[in-house]
Amino acid sequence: MEIFYSYDCSGGVCRLDETESAHCVRVLRHREGEEIQVFDGSGNLYRCRLTDASPKAAQALVLEQIPDWGAVPYRLTMGVCPTKNADRFEWFAEKAVEFGVDRIAPLAGDHSERRTVNLQRLRKILLSAAKQSLKGRVPEVDEICTVKEFIRNANPESLRLIAYCFEEEDARKLSINEALSSAGNVPITILIGPEGDFSREELQLALSNGFLPVHLGQSRLRTETAALAAVAAVYLNSQCS
Amino acid sequence: MEIFYSYDCSGGVCRLDETESAHCVRVLRHREGEEIQVFDGSGNLYRCRLTDASPKAAQALVLEQIPDWGAVPYRLTMGVCPTKNADRFEWFAEKAVEFGVDRIAPLAGDHSERRTVNLQRLRKILLSAAKQSLKGRVPEVDEICTVKEFIRNANPESLRLIAYCFEEEDARKLSINEALSSAGNVPITILIGPEGDFSREELQLALSNGFLPVHLGQSRLRTETAALAAVAAVYLNSQCS
Repeated sequence: MEIFYSYDCSGGVCRLDETESAHCVRVLRHREGEEIQVFDGSGNLYRCRLTDASPKAAQALVLEQIPDWGAVPYRLTMGVCPTKNADRFEWFAEKAVEFGVDRIAPLAGDHSERRTVNLQRLRKILLSAAKQSLKGRVPEVDEICTVKEFIRNANPESLRLIAYCFEEEDARKLSINEALSSAGNVPITILIGPEGDFSREELQLALSNGFLPVHLGQSRLRTETAALAAVAAVYLNSQCS
Repeated sequence: MEIFYSYDCSGGVCRLDETESAHCVRVLRHREGEEIQVFDGSGNLYRCRLTDASPKAAQALVLEQIPDWGAVPYRLTMGVCPTKNADRFEWFAEKAVEFGVDRIAPLAGDHSERRTVNLQRLRKILLSAAKQSLKGRVPEVDEICTVKEFIRNANPESLRLIAYCFEEEDARKLSINEALSSAGNVPITILIGPEGDFSREELQLALSNGFLPVHLGQSRLRTETAALAAVAAVYLNSQCS
């Protein structure tokens, strides 16, 4: 099933940008009057009729709107420190979309080597992953902020989990599955540190702000693998229990 | 912790090949008499004393042998059809090692576009992932064979699961977690198809050979993501329940 992204679906009309128009009209040779499927990245799929087959600015009339298309039954925010190697973080982002994630917050930790992320590139990857995995909603991506800012601003209504590797006496870790089993329907926020792990200050701030310490099992996982393990755990708990 | 791979640990001596010797002696400047850690890829970690700091063929005397080092408490064989894009399959292999997998069997399915795999390159990736994630055992990788051969030769004592996307009337799918909860301590074999999914013949052969049909939730996952979801499910069930 081919789906086109529209940056603007309003007034019963979906407008395609130059890239999507060219793909729709030039590559796939759709003609005026044909039915196409369009999504808006905000959760809606539209069954449309192509009314203007312009290869630069195609437009389609909405015949039917399908809300919450491809939505997963949970709300997940991942706060993750980007890896030194940008590919690994981008890979995580793609896979997180396939499983289902609502928001990705790239974070700079006290021990982070990378403190920048290419948001434009990341958003392209997320959009294309959403199309490929039939998800109507493209996850939000925040500007990078510090781990401490993220902790202070995390939704206090959400189940907030922090996964880290070192041992801290006053923090008994639950397994991520134990922690998730208590989630019910509340939104979930999971914090994953950089290659150098969180600083003790960051952990203490998280704990004093209501984050639960969790572990992801005994294997030593790379940062992006740990982040994906957390997303997979949320997904599998919700879809495969 | 720096660990060196030895292709031959016997008679109380671990021998390093040219690459590992150069890394140990030239890059990290280890000297004779120093302690180093060596693993043999078969599950053993050795605490050693460097006795010959040759940058081409270093040798170390075994002081202590630690068996089953970094082993996970399950036995998992993944039969996976390589993706069109080789990187995606190699990425799966790296991540599978981090979680823990014993054997990877690349398979050619009736609908496979890729019927070859670069085993030498794959083995390098697995070795380096095992070192990085502190796993003493490097997973076995088979020569590519057909899905049907793999089904016929699968260990009949193992819990055998097949994940596929299409609907088949006579096969009610369990979720992978439901299926795994019945595993106990038996080895696990999981079969993941190509981008084009399995053929009906392959599915029927699997079912008639005792494979259980499973699903991996409602999201449409890429082949390599589905394969990783299965490995993650086994890992999380074992480590995080």
